[in-house]
This record gives sequence, structure tokens and C-alpha cells, in this order.
Amino acid sequence: KGIQPNESLLASNAGKDLKIGIVRARWNSSVVDPLVDGCVQSLTTLGVAQSDITHVTVPGSFELPLAAKCIIEQNNLDAVICVGTLIKGETMHFEYISDAVSQGIMRVGLDSGVPVIFGVLTCLSMKQALARAGISAGTESDVKSSSLPHNHGLDWGNTAVEMALITKRATYIKLDE
Amino acid sequence: KGIQPNESLLASNAGKDLKIGIVRARWNSSVVDPLVDGCVQSLTTLGVAQSDITHVTVPGSFELPLAAKCIIEQNNLDAVICVGTLIKGETMHFEYISDAVSQGIMRVGLDSGVPVIFGVLTCLSMKQALARAGISAGTESDVKSSSLPHNHGLDWGNTAVEMALITKRATYIKLDE
Amino acid sequence: KGIQPNESLLASNAGKDLKIGIVRARWNSSVVDPLVDGCVQSLTTLGVAQSDITHVTVPGSFELPLAAKCIIEQNNLDAVICVGTLIKGETMHFEYISDAVSQGIMRVGLDSGVPVIFGVLTCLSMKQALARAGISAGTESDVKSSSLPHNHGLDWGNTAVEMALITKRATYIKLDE
Amino acid sequence: KGIQPNESLLASNAGKDLKIGIVRARWNSSVVDPLVDGCVQSLTTLGVAQSDITHVTVPGSFELPLAAKCIIEQNNLDAVICVGTLIKGETMHFEYISDAVSQGIMRVGLDSGVPVIFGVLTCLSMKQALARAGISAGTESDVKSSSLPHNHGLDWGNTAVEMALITKRATYIKLDE
Amino acid sequence: KGIQPNESLLASNAGKDLKIGIVRARWNSSVVDPLVDGCVQSLTTLGVAQSDITHVTVPGSFELPLAAKCIIEQNNLDAVICVGTLIKGETMHFEYISDAVSQGIMRVGLDSGVPVIFGVLTCLSMKQALARAGISAGTESDVKSSSLPHNHGLDWGNTAVEMALITKRATYIKLDE
Repeated sequence: KGIQPNESLLASNAGKDLKIGIVRARWNSSVVDPLVDGCVQSLTTLGVAQSDITHVTVPGSFELPLAAKCIIEQNNLDAVICVGTLIKGETMHFEYISDAVSQGIMRVGLDSGVPVIFGVLTCLSMKQALARAGISAGTESDVKSSSLPHNHGLDWGNTAVEMALITKRATYIKLDE
Repeated sequence: KGIQPNESLLASNAGKDLKIGIVRARWNSSVVDPLVDGCVQSLTTLGVAQSDITHVTVPGSFELPLAAKCIIEQNNLDAVICVGTLIKGETMHFEYISDAVSQGIMRVGLDSGVPVIFGVLTCLSMKQALARAGISAGTESDVKSSSLPHNHGLDWGNTAVEMALITKRATYIKLDE
Repeated sequence: KGIQPNESLLASNAGKDLKIGIVRARWNSSVVDPLVDGCVQSLTTLGVAQSDITHVTVPGSFELPLAAKCIIEQNNLDAVICVGTLIKGETMHFEYISDAVSQGIMRVGLDSGVPVIFGVLTCLSMKQALARAGISAGTESDVKSSSLPHNHGLDWGNTAVEMALITKRATYIKLDE
Repeated sequence: KGIQPNESLLASNAGKDLKIGIVRARWNSSVVDPLVDGCVQSLTTLGVAQSDITHVTVPGSFELPLAAKCIIEQNNLDAVICVGTLIKGETMHFEYISDAVSQGIMRVGLDSGVPVIFGVLTCLSMKQALARAGISAGTESDVKSSSLPHNHGLDWGNTAVEMALITKRATYIKLDE
Repeated sequence: KGIQPNESLLASNAGKDLKIGIVRARWNSSVVDPLVDGCVQSLTTLGVAQSDITHVTVPGSFELPLAAKCIIEQNNLDAVICVGTLIKGETMHFEYISDAVSQGIMRVGLDSGVPVIFGVLTCLSMKQALARAGISAGTESDVKSSSLPHNHGLDWGNTAVEMALITKRATYIKLDE
């Protein structure tokens, strides 16, 4: 479920000494909180110290890119995970926010050279969002097998460590070919 | 209704000495005016002085990003709220304006490092817009409970203060975990 | 009809000494020409001298942003109005041009700090375009009252003057609150 | 058919001494080749020397913006025409390529100050593309009159010369008003 | 099938001494792996040494642009190919990721001047993706002739070499006209 973390990373306590930021949006905290828990779980499993994780809370997802840029500069971080949940409503707010936030997160990463992980769910229903936070089985079609839903936050923690190693230490992981 | 402001902010008179800009569009003033009132109400509740709020009026929402950039530079502001209301019409004007404005507001925030709050409603009808300005109950589906509609301007004022504290004073608010 | 110009602007001969550019696209000149006439009418009503208006014609709307950037730099202008008319055709040309042009006009304004007014109609039919140029009543639904259609160029001229005053002279117009 | 070139340009041998680049994509060469021929025809009609036209071929339309940027810098060109043809397929490739390419071409023009002409067809069928290259009558609805289809490349050559004159020599062409 | 590589490139062992990066996403490796194999096959056919190919694996397609930027700077590469596969799911994740990634890849190429090849499939089904990786015949409409499906990775390797020659050595390939 989800994408498997790189095995050599897991073996090597790769996240040791990395400084990671997590910016979370306060909206839809029933989804965002378990996603952040998932991020922290995978970060610490990979060796990141709890004291090396900087937490920031912002009101909504639109604020994620600026906060990411800000804490990168203030704290000399190796990667930031932006966690938010956007759910389609009656107006077009969802579409324009989702677009601006996804482009904004990409921009902050490219401007700074520091990985900014896209941990924003863009869902058509709360049920879809809950399933991706690992706390509800959702509909049958949401979870194609009979297994429990996967907390996407686990992937984002792994991604933050892996990308920090690539950008900071030029540790490229070659596959056998 | 809306997202609750951060409680430690409310307790600490957090907005004291912050300089905040509000840029409003003149189009759809029946919606925009109460939204601006909501912004001012939450700003002053958080301790921002009326004399520290700079008001600028522009013709339409397309002008919001440039005006925000301009008053940030001219007045050394700590945050700006852009307030406008776009409503779907017969042509594609709504779509292209909404897209350019949302990306433009994101850009000005990231270029300047000063929070620029997205207070632009992108609605499919005036009824949707009025409900989000707190002055009409809208349809039953607009307001899912039987309660009165929520003025989104209240959220934007809170957001401006909170983001100013994060970007300016590095005051991160950690949640218990 | 349209948005009313700011009354204090009208009273004060506010456009005096402002240098304004108008870039027009040659495509759909039956719509673009009256729109430009509307711009000139409102500019001169506000005190802008005919000799202070720089006119440039470009082939199509895609060329508007670059021409705006160019004449701002060459002529030290206080604002530019980009006037064009895009109408949905059989291919996807309309969508990609409209998107690139609206984002491009926003960019030139934010890059330069000089207001670049979005005077581009993005219509699904020629009838929609004509109605917005003030030269055809269009369908009943185009003009919801029985009144004559409104020439949007009039708004754009007013917008150019108002934004020039905001960005150049920091003349903010506060509303009574 | 198409937009008429500016008459004073035609009279004045305006393209003399201008250095123009043409970047073409190799995909859909049955459409792209006649479009490039149309560009060359209008360029030379306006006085551009064949030896002042730099031709570059790239594999696909995604490569057009970078090649345009590159040859502008390497050859000190006065304008570049990007010629490609994108046709809707079964996946979403068409949509994302079209969007990135149209925004990329706009960006290169605004970054460099040198006109980069958008000569990319974004069509829903090969029939639509052929009709716009002037080599097939297409469906009746493609060509609304009974006349032969118009080669859009002719317009792009004219546009390149006109925009080069505006940006390089500040030769603005005023219409009678 | 696919676009034919430039014949003069094939004849001249054109890729000799070029340093090429391949960034691949780990998601959908059953599609991504054969695509990367295709890239390597065409690169080596054109004379690129295996030891001059830098391989980097990132978790998902969102990470491709930053990794491309990073390895260009760290390794002084002549071109990078970004290989990923995005498939439409139940939420809007596909749309926002596809948009951010395609714009991000374009940006990194234009920022750096180094070709960054768009090797990202944006498909509505896994069947569509497999067909484009050359390992499944897909539906009849996917492969219009009765021939085997084409591995798009072959094209991307050719494109990387051709664009490296254009941007690095100004080797423009003129067609006979």
C-alpha cells in the first residue's frame, strides 16, 4: 500500500541529523492530524530526531507555500512537508486554491533548492480524504482490495528524507539494471 | 462556522503593533463591503489598531495583486488581505480572471515574503457569494446546518495576523502531539 | 452599467499629466475599435491629454503582454491598457491563448510595477463580444435589463487612471466606514 | 482569410536587415512543413533575406520554448517563430503539453524582450490541423465560406516582422482615429 | 512508430561525450522501468557511454523537476530526461500533479538552459500507460495499426541528444527546403 520506501534508506538510519519542517493547515484537522502523525512516524523510523522536526500550523492550504518558504529560510531545513486537505465545495474555491497551492509548492522547492513535499489531498469528498489519511475504509472503490486504507503521510515522510539526501548530499540511489 | 482562530493568538493581543493592508475590489460591493467589515472586526479583536490598517480600493479583482505588491512596498506592511468577489457570467471572463488573480496573489506573497491573504470569492452565483459574506442564508445546501451563514472576512483577518506572526516574528504555534 | 468610476477621481481632473499606453490587437477590429474608443473617452474625461496616450497595434492578443512590457520601458508610462477580443473556435486555440495572455498581462504588471489593465474579452460568441463593446444589444440574457449594452472600454480607461494614481502617487481612496 | 498584414509594413520593405528564427517541431511534419513555408513566404515578401532566417528543428512542441530561448541568445535574433502542431489523443498528454508550451513561449518572449510568435496549432483532429496549414479544405464547418483554407504560417511571418519593429525600433503604427 | 530520430544524428555518433541524466519516479515502476530502458537504449545507440548516464530515482513525479534541477547543477549535465507515469484516480490528485510537474519541468529547462525532456505519461488508465511503454498492445484504438506498441522512452533518449546538441553546441539541423 502506497509506495515502498527505498530499502537502503531504511537500513542506513538515513534521516539522522536531517532537519525537517512540517507545515500543516488547520482546516479539516480530522484528516490533517493523522496525516501529520504518519509523516512523523516515517521520519522517526528513518532516524530523524523528534527535536529536529519543526512544526508550523497555518490556517488554510493557501498559506502552505509561504510558510514553507519562510521556515526554510529561518531554520536552514533540509526538507519541508506541506500537509493540507482540500475538498470540493459548491463554489469554484477548491479549483483555484488547489491550482495556486500546487504551483506554489512547486515554486518554493525550485526557488530554494530545498525539497518541499506536496502533502495536500485534493478530494471530491470527505470520504476520499479520510481513506487517504488511513482512518476510514472509504467506499469499496476507494480501497480496491479488502485491506485497510493507507495513510499517505507515511509516504511523505519517506519522500522528505529521500529528497533531502538527493539534494543535500547528492546521494543518488541507483537501481540494478 | 469557518475555522476557529488560534486560541493563544486571541489570548495574547497578538495583533498589537502589526500593520495590515486591506485591498478591496469595487465590483460587487454588496458582498465585498461586509467581507471587509469582517476582516476589520477580527483584526481589531486581535489587537490591531484601526490606525494601523491601510485601506485601498481598486476597480476589480484583477487589480488586487498589483495593489497588494504596491502597498507592501510603500507602507512596510506585515500582511495584506485581498478582498474581491468574482461571479460566473456568460463569457469565460470569470475563469481567466480567477486563475490570474489566484496565481497573482500567490506570487506577490512568495516574491515579497509578506503574507497576502486570498480573500477572493469565486462563486457560481450571487447567492453563493452573499452566503459567504454572512448576509444571506443562501440555499439550504449552501449552509448545511440551520445556523446563520458565516462571514469569511472574519477568517481572513485572523489569518492575516497569524501569518504575520509566523513570517515576521517566527512565532510558530505547536500543537500538542 | 459597468462599475462606476471613483467620484473623487472624476472631480479632481485626476488624469492630468498621466502618460497612458493602449495596446490593441488587430483581430476582431469591429469589437476592438469601439473598445479602444471607450478607453480614450474615459481617459480624456478624467483629464488625460490625447497627446499623452501612446497607441500601439499588434496582430493578435498573444502579442499584447510583450508589447505592453516594451512600451512601458520605452515611454516611461504610468499605465497600459491591453485591448483584445478572443472568441471560442473549433480548436483549443482560444483556451491556450486566453490562459497565456491573462497570465502574461498579470506578469507584466507585477514585474514592472506599472498597472497593465486586462481589456481582453474572452467570449464564446461574437454576439457576446459585440454586446460588451457597446455596439449591439446581444441576446436578452446578455443584457439583463432592457437598457443599451455597456462599452467595457469605458471601465478600462477609468481603471488605468485609478491604478496609476495608486501605484505612482500612493493616492489611496478610503471609503467611509 | 487570416488577419491582413499591416499595409505600411508591406509598402516599406520593413523586414530588411531583420534576423528571424524559425523553430519547428518534427512531429506532424505534413502540417508543420507547409506552415513553415507560409512563414518563409511572408517573411521574404516583407523583405527579410533568406540568409537572415535561422532554421532549427526540434523533436516535439515541448522543446520549442527552450530552443527559442537558445537561438535568441546564440544568434542575436529580432524575433522567433515557434511552429508545431499538437493534436488531441487518448491520454491527457495534449492538454499538459499545450499548456506548458503556450506558457513557455510567452515566458521566453517576456524574459528576453524578443518576440516569440506562437505558431502552435492545438487541434482536436488532424483535419482541423490540415485546414489551418492551407493544404486541405477540411469540413464545411472548418472553412465557413467556400474559399480555400488559409495557411496560418503566413500570419506568423507577418507577426514576427511587425513585433520585431515594435520591440526593436519602437516603430508604433497608429491607426487613423 | 514514434517520431523518427534525426538521421544525421544517427550517422555521426552524435551522443559521444555527452553527459545525460535520467530521473525516474518509483511509482508505477512496471511502466517506468521499460521507459527508462528505452531511454538508455536510444542514448547508447547514439553514442552516449553508459558511464556518462547519471541515474536518480525519486519517489513520485512531483519530485522530478527539483531532482532534475539538482543533478544538472551537481553534475554539469548536457540534458536530463524526467520519466514518470501519472494515472487518473478518483480524486483530483492526477490533475494538479500533472499540471505542476509539466510546468515545473518546463521551468527547470528554461531556468538552466539545459534541456529537460518531458518523459511523463499522463494517462487515464494503466492500459494506456503500458501501451506507451511498449509492453502491452493496449486496446485496438490505442495502437491504430496492428503493429506492436512503441516504447516512448526511445524517443526521449533521441530527444535528449538532439536538444543537447542544439543548446550546447549550436548544431542546428536544417531541412532541405
